[in-house]
Amino acid sequence: MKAVRVHKYDSAPTVDDVPEPTVSGAFDVLVEIGAAGLCRTDLHVVEGQWAEKTGVTLPYIIGHENAGWVRQVGSAVTNVAPGDTVILHPLVTCGLCRACRSGDDVHCENSEFPGMTRDGGMAEYLLTNARAVVKLDPSLQPAEVAALADAGLTAYHAVRKAIPLLYPGSHVVAIGAGGLGHIGVQCLKALTPAEITVVDRLESALSLAKDLGAHHTVQANGDPVSTVQEITDGKGAHVVIDFVGEKGAQQQGVAMLRRAGSYFSVGYGDEITIPTIDIISQEINVIGNLVGSYNDLEELMTLTAQGKVSLHTTTYPLDAVNDAIHDLEAGRLQGRGILVPGKS
Amino acid sequence: MKAVRVHKYDSAPTVDDVPEPTVSGAFDVLVEIGAAGLCRTDLHVVEGQWAEKTGVTLPYIIGHENAGWVRQVGSAVTNVAPGDTVILHPLVTCGLCRACRSGDDVHCENSEFPGMTRDGGMAEYLLTNARAVVKLDPSLQPAEVAALADAGLTAYHAVRKAIPLLYPGSHVVAIGAGGLGHIGVQCLKALTPAEITVVDRLESALSLAKDLGAHHTVQANGDPVSTVQEITDGKGAHVVIDFVGEKGAQQQGVAMLRRAGSYFSVGYGDEITIPTIDIISQEINVIGNLVGSYNDLEELMTLTAQGKVSLHTTTYPLDAVNDAIHDLEAGRLQGRGILVPGKS
Amino acid sequence: MKAVRVHKYDSAPTVDDVPEPTVSGAFDVLVEIGAAGLCRTDLHVVEGQWAEKTGVTLPYIIGHENAGWVRQVGSAVTNVAPGDTVILHPLVTCGLCRACRSGDDVHCENSEFPGMTRDGGMAEYLLTNARAVVKLDPSLQPAEVAALADAGLTAYHAVRKAIPLLYPGSHVVAIGAGGLGHIGVQCLKALTPAEITVVDRLESALSLAKDLGAHHTVQANGDPVSTVQEITDGKGAHVVIDFVGEKGAQQQGVAMLRRAGSYFSVGYGDEITIPTIDIISQEINVIGNLVGSYNDLEELMTLTAQGKVSLHTTTYPLDAVNDAIHDLEAGRLQGRGILVPGKS
Amino acid sequence: MKAVRVHKYDSAPTVDDVPEPTVSGAFDVLVEIGAAGLCRTDLHVVEGQWAEKTGVTLPYIIGHENAGWVRQVGSAVTNVAPGDTVILHPLVTCGLCRACRSGDDVHCENSEFPGMTRDGGMAEYLLTNARAVVKLDPSLQPAEVAALADAGLTAYHAVRKAIPLLYPGSHVVAIGAGGLGHIGVQCLKALTPAEITVVDRLESALSLAKDLGAHHTVQANGDPVSTVQEITDGKGAHVVIDFVGEKGAQQQGVAMLRRAGSYFSVGYGDEITIPTIDIISQEINVIGNLVGSYNDLEELMTLTAQGKVSLHTTTYPLDAVNDAIHDLEAGRLQGRGILVPGKS
Repeated sequence: MKAVRVHKYDSAPTVDDVPEPTVSGAFDVLVEIGAAGLCRTDLHVVEGQWAEKTGVTLPYIIGHENAGWVRQVGSAVTNVAPGDTVILHPLVTCGLCRACRSGDDVHCENSEFPGMTRDGGMAEYLLTNARAVVKLDPSLQPAEVAALADAGLTAYHAVRKAIPLLYPGSHVVAIGAGGLGHIGVQCLKALTPAEITVVDRLESALSLAKDLGAHHTVQANGDPVSTVQEITDGKGAHVVIDFVGEKGAQQQGVAMLRRAGSYFSVGYGDEITIPTIDIISQEINVIGNLVGSYNDLEELMTLTAQGKVSLHTTTYPLDAVNDAIHDLEAGRLQGRGILVPGKS
Repeated sequence: MKAVRVHKYDSAPTVDDVPEPTVSGAFDVLVEIGAAGLCRTDLHVVEGQWAEKTGVTLPYIIGHENAGWVRQVGSAVTNVAPGDTVILHPLVTCGLCRACRSGDDVHCENSEFPGMTRDGGMAEYLLTNARAVVKLDPSLQPAEVAALADAGLTAYHAVRKAIPLLYPGSHVVAIGAGGLGHIGVQCLKALTPAEITVVDRLESALSLAKDLGAHHTVQANGDPVSTVQEITDGKGAHVVIDFVGEKGAQQQGVAMLRRAGSYFSVGYGDEITIPTIDIISQEINVIGNLVGSYNDLEELMTLTAQGKVSLHTTTYPLDAVNDAIHDLEAGRLQGRGILVPGKS
Repeated sequence: MKAVRVHKYDSAPTVDDVPEPTVSGAFDVLVEIGAAGLCRTDLHVVEGQWAEKTGVTLPYIIGHENAGWVRQVGSAVTNVAPGDTVILHPLVTCGLCRACRSGDDVHCENSEFPGMTRDGGMAEYLLTNARAVVKLDPSLQPAEVAALADAGLTAYHAVRKAIPLLYPGSHVVAIGAGGLGHIGVQCLKALTPAEITVVDRLESALSLAKDLGAHHTVQANGDPVSTVQEITDGKGAHVVIDFVGEKGAQQQGVAMLRRAGSYFSVGYGDEITIPTIDIISQEINVIGNLVGSYNDLEELMTLTAQGKVSLHTTTYPLDAVNDAIHDLEAGRLQGRGILVPGKS
Repeated sequence: MKAVRVHKYDSAPTVDDVPEPTVSGAFDVLVEIGAAGLCRTDLHVVEGQWAEKTGVTLPYIIGHENAGWVRQVGSAVTNVAPGDTVILHPLVTCGLCRACRSGDDVHCENSEFPGMTRDGGMAEYLLTNARAVVKLDPSLQPAEVAALADAGLTAYHAVRKAIPLLYPGSHVVAIGAGGLGHIGVQCLKALTPAEITVVDRLESALSLAKDLGAHHTVQANGDPVSTVQEITDGKGAHVVIDFVGEKGAQQQGVAMLRRAGSYFSVGYGDEITIPTIDIISQEINVIGNLVGSYNDLEELMTLTAQGKVSLHTTTYPLDAVNDAIHDLEAGRLQGRGILVPGKS
């Protein structure tokens, strides 16, 4: 089969002919890839930024946002069958540790991460296991949803954790309305009655946020903290979800909180610094957010099938992976880039 | 190996020589049974009361409260190894459905129940899977803990669900201080600061409850509802946990609640009837409780290892299963009956 | 001022001239009534069904769904000022007991209930206290919202409690789409992503529910339990909210639940009966629901100001109270009846 | 009456003769002070560190940890009566804002803080309101409990918020076993089954912690992060409660967390700095903690009456306030210093 492999860090990956993987274990699932999302993390992988952390042996296949069709299953698989359309949770988890048993499988003590720590989905086939595959509503196409498997799932997860804080009349600020943020805004609309303010530097992002239902949009280049204070009658926001996490956004996010408010950290890059006296006297919280759980992904797919969440994409044939990479690097890529193996 | 099998309903089970089970699947775990609890449900199984519900084919091995030592594991098992002392969760679950992934594995859509729907643990060996085995602290012995696998786990589960309602100054009533109830009282002491009242008909049970830390004991044959009202300054209890569920206990339990109180239903037998106007105007709740999850069992074993929960037992050799059954039927059995295969 | 007073049970109330109440206490608030809802409970009060329970002395002014404008406030009132448009929480609470301090003021140990236990709002003025008045968005009119103060608030409260159970892909059934139920459906749409099924006997109610966004409507006269099982792939609903509570609806509601599901009791009339073995083996819950808290009412008013919740009304002058009563008794009243003191 | 007043910042307060306050408002409560705790914050007030923040006019009476006996009440007070022993919540709150109505009265929008923003309790009498007084079990004496009103309440509040995270088998670390920390350890024992590790620089504090039931004690001057990793099998703690918040403790506290762990910030002094990538990739939380609510104080008083929480004190007559201050400054004060007006 054809597969996009990294042979050497900081060199363009190549499309190679490699043997198809096959089902051997009882919980194995072989998926024919219908779409593999390309994200900035893939560029970092190619550059070698993750080399030390993952310790993966080259060459290997990248791609961690995958969807397709089940082709073969192991003897113990009961949740999917050949022919099912599926999206793949980014992690392959054990199902045995306390985290897996608690709905917190992202913190599985034995997880693997295809496309990072072992062969991923920029290929015609991917071998995964039954715990990683979410069966899709037949109305959904792999190319429409693949990029929700990681970026979208992270945004959903953060919003879902914020639900108990977001009652009618409460204020939530989303910092950043890009890849994750614009999914976050859609999730906030679908799951909460909160008043939504979106902060971004790009007018196009603010305009998209408005179209998606944000109540207020704020230009990040001005004084967004003051503007949020005005919008919230000088009290600040109940919840700030920061999809940026760098270049000062993280400090502004904390400064936007009201007493007892919560800053949800999603994007990353720089440090966050807060005097402990401010944490105490305002009784504020900083809430970390990693990618969502399997159940989160199933819920996000339900919202997607209901038309409540969607994303913009540009598709490329698998062979054109380096075109997609160049377009992403050059800022020419509209929406998320999606590699489609069957396309030519 | 030797195994206690039911050949015909309403006839005494026999101790047969049967082939040892062997590991074949990747998640299989073969356990040498160190102790198998005997409970009233086993009597009902022998009588055929569960025949229609389970549809199991005779003969088969009974026993659903099991503990022992791992002897062999399948290729994908990572949580236990040969030699480990383990207790077995009563259910063998799939790890794939939403319930299994949410910490709610008791509602697994594909579970099996050894000793009920397939061969159980009154035998020298039992074949189960990796999702069912909880590794024990080396200080614990199978015979000490086996009976906690089902009865104790149910009590723990109910108490754990009640924790958020039981703040310092709150009142909890436990109806019944028998097999489940006396574990429940120990769990209440270990997990909550609530003031505990125990209601029972047997003076010996009330005396045991007092020794275990109950603050008040109430004779069930009097007017326990009025007594609870007095203990709670006429307001009623925040939580009632009913380990009896029949012969009027269930109606008394509801009558003991204060406004916005919750009745936890654990024991069963009769119907519960409440006028909807009372449910509404008092804003009370009826909370169902089944056996606990795998994680619940792990937590209960931690409490047991810490010496916070213990139970009284009488042990019998496996060959003496019918003696144990007769003793239980005749009310001669002190504490829980435990069958020990290695004993003679 | 003019006021609707009951002089004798089972006789028509009369519109009397009575002295205006005046502010004397530090937390007193005098409200000029803009609208007073008429509900079935008022008919029961007139009939004397509540006589014994409230022990109120006749004659007195009825009316417990009130909205209007603040005219005078006591010295310690900080949350409203003369001129503010307000809706009145049905209870006047103490602010000192544990319930009041916990967001659970409905269970205040010292509450009064204007229109039930003391003079109510079918009058030109009503004296209440600062803890009972919710300041309204200036866009809202008393006549539009008065009937939300009790019936609407009850529906909102039940839905809000169900939010944690209603994730994307979950199923909720609302039994009854009348006065409370049609508000409940609007709240479900505003607060949750759940799939909504509405059961009612009236085709007009089902049609309204569909317009309000229900995904499925089911005729109550058929076999609604089976239909709900079909809609939910044979699993049953996660949540059933029963706005009827009598004539079998309560038993059907429980039968519609899936394993670990919750039946929310709101409407009342008949008894609910469940075998404890069913409560246990299905691990289901019965959740009582009384009227909502002050904070609930504030949140409901936010949804109303946002246009997410509205109700149909027919207005009458205060003098025409007995016309309104007759219309309600005769089933001629479209939507909720609202008495407007200033109208003639 | 005699009262300790600050006339000039950075000068010793003096014991003056001032008029007794009197009840005028409906919710006023006049308390004869039985005991007033002296805490480090009082020193900071005298030094003028709070001058700008509070804007209080000199001279005024300090003292914000107060207990005593009710002597007179306003006409609307229903929760206490003359003669009752009471402890005073540090804040006088409005009972009207959303926070007060939600059990979150610490964030009251209109609160006052006797001893900080108006006359406090180092005097023979203090005027407060009905929302601030918690009636005590007659077995408790003002001098035993006064210092729990602020410091103890803060520790209780943090522990109570951590309860849902602390199941059997979980690990909690308390950094600092001084004034707040040693109360925190007692609360952890009373409310949770967690395994408790205490970190401190003082051997006497570690020894006290051990006596109070800590399972492990760790010398802060070594490498406490590594030691906690060892105690937790290399995984880190589920919860860290930091009663210090400065001099590196705050950074060590975060470093002690396991994946998805939570750092509870209580003590303050220095800044906390965390790379956003660590917050994200570990999915950790920073939880702010201010003083507890009124209901928290009532619960803490219940634990105290039950003998589960107690503190060491040294009492001084009111006239000896400056001796107490000097002893505190010089580190000579054993336990908490308590001023007792009636003592001589």
